[in-house]
Amino acid sequence: MAQEEKFVYAFEEGRADMKYVLGGKGANLAEMTNLGLPVPPGFTITTGASNVFSQTGAYPAGLEAKVEEHLAKLEAKTGKKLGDVNDPLLVSVRSGAPFSMPGMMDTVLNLGLNDQSVKGLIAQTGDARFAYDSYRRFIQMFGKVVMRIEGQLFEDAIKAKKVERGVKQDIDLSAEDLQGLIGGFKDIVRRHAGREFPEEPRQQLDLAIKAVFESWNNKRARDYRRLYKIPDTLGTAVNVQTMVFGNKGDTSGTGVAFTRDAATGENEAYGDYLINAQGEDVVAGIRNTEPISNLENELPEAYGELMRTLDILEKHYRDMCDTEFTIEQGKLYMLQTRVGKRTAAAALRIAVDMVNEGLIDKNEAVMRIEPEQLDQLLHPRFDPAADVKVLATGLNASPGAAVGKVVFDADTAEEMGERGEKVILTRWETTPDDLHGMIAAQGIWTSHGGKTSHAAVVARGMGKPCVAGCALLEIDTVKRTCSVDGTTLREGDIVSIDGTTGRVVVGPVPLVPPTPTPEFDMILGWADEVRRLGVRANADTPEDAAKAREFGAEGIGLARTEHMFLGDRLPIVQKMILGNEDEKHQALEELLVVQKKDFIGILKAMDGLPVTIRLLDPPLHEFLPGLVELEVEVAKMECTGADASKLEEKRSLLRRVQLMSESNPMLGLRGCRLGIVNPEIYKMQVRAIMEAAAELKAGGNDPVVEIMIPLVSLDEELRVLRGEAEAVCAEVIERTGQPVEYKIGTMIELPRAAVTADEIAKHAEFFSFGTNDLTQTTFGFSRDDIEGKFLARYLERKIMASNPFETIDPGVVKLVDIACDLGRKTKPNIKLGVCGEHGGDPASVKHFHEVGLDYVSCSPYRVPLARLAAAQAALSEKVTKSVST
Amino acid sequence: MAQEEKFVYAFEEGRADMKYVLGGKGANLAEMTNLGLPVPPGFTITTGASNVFSQTGAYPAGLEAKVEEHLAKLEAKTGKKLGDVNDPLLVSVRSGAPFSMPGMMDTVLNLGLNDQSVKGLIAQTGDARFAYDSYRRFIQMFGKVVMRIEGQLFEDAIKAKKVERGVKQDIDLSAEDLQGLIGGFKDIVRRHAGREFPEEPRQQLDLAIKAVFESWNNKRARDYRRLYKIPDTLGTAVNVQTMVFGNKGDTSGTGVAFTRDAATGENEAYGDYLINAQGEDVVAGIRNTEPISNLENELPEAYGELMRTLDILEKHYRDMCDTEFTIEQGKLYMLQTRVGKRTAAAALRIAVDMVNEGLIDKNEAVMRIEPEQLDQLLHPRFDPAADVKVLATGLNASPGAAVGKVVFDADTAEEMGERGEKVILTRWETTPDDLHGMIAAQGIWTSHGGKTSHAAVVARGMGKPCVAGCALLEIDTVKRTCSVDGTTLREGDIVSIDGTTGRVVVGPVPLVPPTPTPEFDMILGWADEVRRLGVRANADTPEDAAKAREFGAEGIGLARTEHMFLGDRLPIVQKMILGNEDEKHQALEELLVVQKKDFIGILKAMDGLPVTIRLLDPPLHEFLPGLVELEVEVAKMECTGADASKLEEKRSLLRRVQLMSESNPMLGLRGCRLGIVNPEIYKMQVRAIMEAAAELKAGGNDPVVEIMIPLVSLDEELRVLRGEAEAVCAEVIERTGQPVEYKIGTMIELPRAAVTADEIAKHAEFFSFGTNDLTQTTFGFSRDDIEGKFLARYLERKIMASNPFETIDPGVVKLVDIACDLGRKTKPNIKLGVCGEHGGDPASVKHFHEVGLDYVSCSPYRVPLARLAAAQAALSEKVTKSVST
Repeated sequence: MAQEEKFVYAFEEGRADMKYVLGGKGANLAEMTNLGLPVPPGFTITTGASNVFSQTGAYPAGLEAKVEEHLAKLEAKTGKKLGDVNDPLLVSVRSGAPFSMPGMMDTVLNLGLNDQSVKGLIAQTGDARFAYDSYRRFIQMFGKVVMRIEGQLFEDAIKAKKVERGVKQDIDLSAEDLQGLIGGFKDIVRRHAGREFPEEPRQQLDLAIKAVFESWNNKRARDYRRLYKIPDTLGTAVNVQTMVFGNKGDTSGTGVAFTRDAATGENEAYGDYLINAQGEDVVAGIRNTEPISNLENELPEAYGELMRTLDILEKHYRDMCDTEFTIEQGKLYMLQTRVGKRTAAAALRIAVDMVNEGLIDKNEAVMRIEPEQLDQLLHPRFDPAADVKVLATGLNASPGAAVGKVVFDADTAEEMGERGEKVILTRWETTPDDLHGMIAAQGIWTSHGGKTSHAAVVARGMGKPCVAGCALLEIDTVKRTCSVDGTTLREGDIVSIDGTTGRVVVGPVPLVPPTPTPEFDMILGWADEVRRLGVRANADTPEDAAKAREFGAEGIGLARTEHMFLGDRLPIVQKMILGNEDEKHQALEELLVVQKKDFIGILKAMDGLPVTIRLLDPPLHEFLPGLVELEVEVAKMECTGADASKLEEKRSLLRRVQLMSESNPMLGLRGCRLGIVNPEIYKMQVRAIMEAAAELKAGGNDPVVEIMIPLVSLDEELRVLRGEAEAVCAEVIERTGQPVEYKIGTMIELPRAAVTADEIAKHAEFFSFGTNDLTQTTFGFSRDDIEGKFLARYLERKIMASNPFETIDPGVVKLVDIACDLGRKTKPNIKLGVCGEHGGDPASVKHFHEVGLDYVSCSPYRVPLARLAAAQAALSEKVTKSVST
Repeated sequence: MAQEEKFVYAFEEGRADMKYVLGGKGANLAEMTNLGLPVPPGFTITTGASNVFSQTGAYPAGLEAKVEEHLAKLEAKTGKKLGDVNDPLLVSVRSGAPFSMPGMMDTVLNLGLNDQSVKGLIAQTGDARFAYDSYRRFIQMFGKVVMRIEGQLFEDAIKAKKVERGVKQDIDLSAEDLQGLIGGFKDIVRRHAGREFPEEPRQQLDLAIKAVFESWNNKRARDYRRLYKIPDTLGTAVNVQTMVFGNKGDTSGTGVAFTRDAATGENEAYGDYLINAQGEDVVAGIRNTEPISNLENELPEAYGELMRTLDILEKHYRDMCDTEFTIEQGKLYMLQTRVGKRTAAAALRIAVDMVNEGLIDKNEAVMRIEPEQLDQLLHPRFDPAADVKVLATGLNASPGAAVGKVVFDADTAEEMGERGEKVILTRWETTPDDLHGMIAAQGIWTSHGGKTSHAAVVARGMGKPCVAGCALLEIDTVKRTCSVDGTTLREGDIVSIDGTTGRVVVGPVPLVPPTPTPEFDMILGWADEVRRLGVRANADTPEDAAKAREFGAEGIGLARTEHMFLGDRLPIVQKMILGNEDEKHQALEELLVVQKKDFIGILKAMDGLPVTIRLLDPPLHEFLPGLVELEVEVAKMECTGADASKLEEKRSLLRRVQLMSESNPMLGLRGCRLGIVNPEIYKMQVRAIMEAAAELKAGGNDPVVEIMIPLVSLDEELRVLRGEAEAVCAEVIERTGQPVEYKIGTMIELPRAAVTADEIAKHAEFFSFGTNDLTQTTFGFSRDDIEGKFLARYLERKIMASNPFETIDPGVVKLVDIACDLGRKTKPNIKLGVCGEHGGDPASVKHFHEVGLDYVSCSPYRVPLARLAAAQAALSEKVTKSVST
């Protein structure tokens, strides 16, 4: 028989690297215990037990006995007994998953209290008010978490009691008041749970453990895991720990401390605390917290102990730690530590500082930065030149700026977000139940809560701006309005928020691009030293090209020419499509002039670096009015008896549009098919590119031209179009006398191109994988159609792990891999890149590194992320290789 | 230095198997020469020379000298000299490609005549009229073919001469008349070609050879090659052969003879001839021909010689031969032989007869039948029960019946055909220039020409009905009308033609399916003995299922359920889509009842054979009114001030349709995605299938159920839907007590499914390749969009070899191959089939045999073709294997 699985570990038995077994919290409590730090004793029930519970709905065999055994040890260690009428052991029961899921799951404090043991607590502390307060908190929390009673009912009862007693604050209620409240609370339990509040502490413990197990599968936990791609199979551990009390008067308190500043990265302890408060008060933002520095004056001894502890932790973990502590009558207890979440700016600064401090090396620094996080540093901020009238200032809880419509609940935010509207979720404070609304919103604005409040933590994780604790903000969710100091906003009114400064402004404020910190370039420089993948940008204008170059782009991987067909050029393009032969010819001549100018700008901005220009890709009918709108116009004109010649003109246009319309334009006459059917357009574009390059070369510049033919599925398409393009190139070179060098290649964006890449490579100097289209055809998914229709359902039901248009799908990677192999078989040195949006997605970059592409190309603002992700992919490979050899 | 390529072969130097070098005509002239048959001497210029000419526009080096050399030998052999004033050598110059392209390229007869040598011809024959007639024919043909002068100009001059002389027939013109005509013809040449008619015979020969070379690339030849998939690179040979004359009076003649009847296959010589006529007169249908049997009385000696020759040829070639002969003053000369084209019925009968005669074995008989040809036997005919009033009767030139609008020229036929209209091309006689119109037409109706006329030969090849030589038909191409015996039809009026009986009827006649010949079942029985691929049918109704079974289908590979959602069920389906929860539920219940009835019918018709039923595939919005039409309706109602409640109702429907509309429905919410989003529809369908099967089983039948889930791209889709289906199946089995056996599988119709088939196979008992959709996504081609937009252009420019929706593309085959390998890796015995339309395409069937599928499935009428094609694939493989081992 296999060795029996160990389902319970005393804190002394665990280690920090056991988080998959003990959860993050349990593993770190064990680590701290073994470091000799002041951790109240306790034990951890493993994630394995939770998984058995998830599958069977019951404890695994033997768990009950093991809990009994560890409880007995805990009683022996503390000299107290659960439920004891003289000196009761009280415990907390907390969830702790392998990955932090802040606020997602449930916690019960003060467990072990009942009508008997509360007397023991009074006897031990001599503080009846404290004891009854602890008891009523326990009933309230247990009622809500374990017995699933609406929390508001308890809050209402407290409010009623305060009104009855004519007091304002909870702490103004006396021991007797609280004792009365306990009776009331038990009535609530009886009425709403349909059974008595369980007095038996062992039963309390069992129920609480099961409630934590169950909380793994509640909706908000599942939503969170979906967002952060945490597998459902990990399960949660349960930590049962001796209670210590931060609410035992003015020498007690509780708080959250970071070893460095999580917002700026400054090397200075940082956090919030509350005197005479318990547990979740700090995180929930119910009372306004004090900054940790104040503790030095208030409780200097405990403060000193805390600082020493933080120092030990940071040196031990070699990273910034995020801790929870409680001070019970002057004595410090550590209740949690973990590697702290941080803003991108802080992450960079901490990493660079730690390299300078000798704690970590450069490669480790590079690995420490979440590429996605860099995006925060690249988020827009208010235009400093804008004349901004600040409505209110709150806490700068998550950096970046956003503009959107005020909405007051998460469901509305989600609905409007799905309609493509930009919204600012505006709440008293967010809770885990608001998660879907936060995902949909551009930014978060709250009236309560600090920088470690739910809104702040989650928004930072999402890289969304958040202004929190904006005390002047009053929300009326019935009238659907909010007001700040007399200014009233209705739901749907536009506000701008700046999470970097905490400012809120009525109406839209122009936003400007961000400027990175000094550490930004340093870390990216280290990244560049180790990465193998090149990073280019997708840019269609000289401005974007310049910005991309500034961000470190090593060329342009995709310049789309269709954007150059819009705006004031649209009438010329329409003439080219609809005109007679002469008009077409004239339109092409006009386009030649303007396109040449475009290309001069882009090639100049990227002087000396390769610029891949894609010939026209979209179907021509995209440049004409829509079929439905024309049909309706004609119907209306007919109905109102419009002028006959105008009607005929409109009808004639309609007929042209009808002829050109397609039932599946994505799979229609576009890309190189246009080049075959209308060779003149591509010839004009090639001429414009080559004349631009020749002119630059004549002026002493160094244009590096790559001409890309899109949507090839047959090698013959490329052979024919390449031939036509080469003829134009030769003509321009001959005529201008400028020996412009150019490459001709193609996009691999159709499965047929991938599986016949050996044939296609005969006519291509480079392949650029167009992974957007390749994903569409590989799956048979139209991105436009599925995102509104069933993608959410698929992600929710975990039919796909992630949106394949964000992170490249393994099936699509297979085709990329096949194409690379076949392409290299024909041309060992063929240049291979990717220019789909996946090029800026870190997880996808890893795949592209692995299949051995030469470069990725992405939007300018994603270039830094791609550089970092490419470096991490190279470093991970090194680790894997050194492990496997 | 490599050995010099031999560009000219005397007939004695060639063989029948050299057709790629000498063309079909040249190779067979050589073979006949070496068999000792009476072939006028000559030589052949190779296809290689033609290819050099195509590329360079000039003769290959050395060709001129070789022609000179062979000409000299020919003069020596015949004792005549080209251009000789006493006894001139006259030659024909004919094209001859490796594959027969009847009438596609050019021929010049009587070459060598000029004002001097005509005198020699008179001297030799003593027949001035014959000599001048030959000379004027030569100028006419040379003018038209070599000098590109409009042929009508010469015809008009003849007509004028006949009017001037007051005669009706060409033969009524005297030697003097013809001599005068020669002067007129030379004037025509001078005026229209801008130069003199070349008198020098050596120059005539050079120009004629070059004209034949050039004719390889004329439009009608290119069109023909595209239709029959003949590579452009083959080139044509040129045959230079001593002239013999069928127009030397009443003991001379010319004709076409088949060794067996090409229409019925009867073992009896068959053909047409004309006395005192030359060359192309028979084929062109200018005079009405005599049946070959009449020759026995008219010229018994020549007839006997011809019969002996035909017998020698058939025994030698072991196949039915199609010959051209000329009788010059009683002596027979063979001018051509080739394996004869034949109707499907004839092909079958000849093959079976030849097996019985011991000429070939069964496998060779199976290989002899073009699968596509079988389609002719399966074409509809007039319903015998229909009350048909025959307008006219012509020759039954190509079997089958068709209904369509009368059109009078090929361009109109093509235009209307592209609009999806059915047309009957109605002509005096067709010419190779009409080819594109014949391709577009349902059938051909001509007033002139026999069974070997252009219209008849080409229509038979295409498997299209043709009524030829309908003497009463008069066409007025200016008024766009035709009339038969006083009945006038305008262009666009509907007629029905029956090419099996030669009848033509005004208006549409109901058509009935055909009944195959006895040889049909015999050959297919032999095919079944050797094929490895199973053949199933795609059928959605009990009638189709029964028909398919009759044709030998071994089950149903695809029963589409969406067809069962149309007709009088559409309102129920719309209620299911648009209704509230109750209405949806009710609609599903109603659909359950009718679907169950459908399935009982189909399963019963295929009792004991597997029936693969595909769950609902198309997007639901296909069952609702179209977006454009609703938008227009609403706009009109708004404009005309319609009733407010009706307007609101329409608007509300519009909003629903807007919400459901997709920009690329092919890539949208359909197939299994519907099953995930609306599980109730699939559950209803599975219940209907299983209840139908249970009911049949209870009644002693043997239903074999295969449930197919469409459009899977992710294994998880199939896992989830399979689970849901299995639950329903278990419930029905439990409830009915009938142990219905069923399989669950999926379509592989998306590239992602193909490249992850190992994962998908975990949840599938079978794969059915949906090659229509797989072709669409592999290429990124929307079939609806490309066929009207650029497919023709692609085929014309030879960017693709064939329409990938007709014959499966090699790139798509790669994905099928990958999927088969991966699927079998997971489940070695997984059943693999194909249910796209390619399943009935012989060339595709060969591919499917090669990748090792278990079966193909196609429309019922293609089942016999698929059986035959599968057998041929197996036999070809045997040949290949026995060659390679």
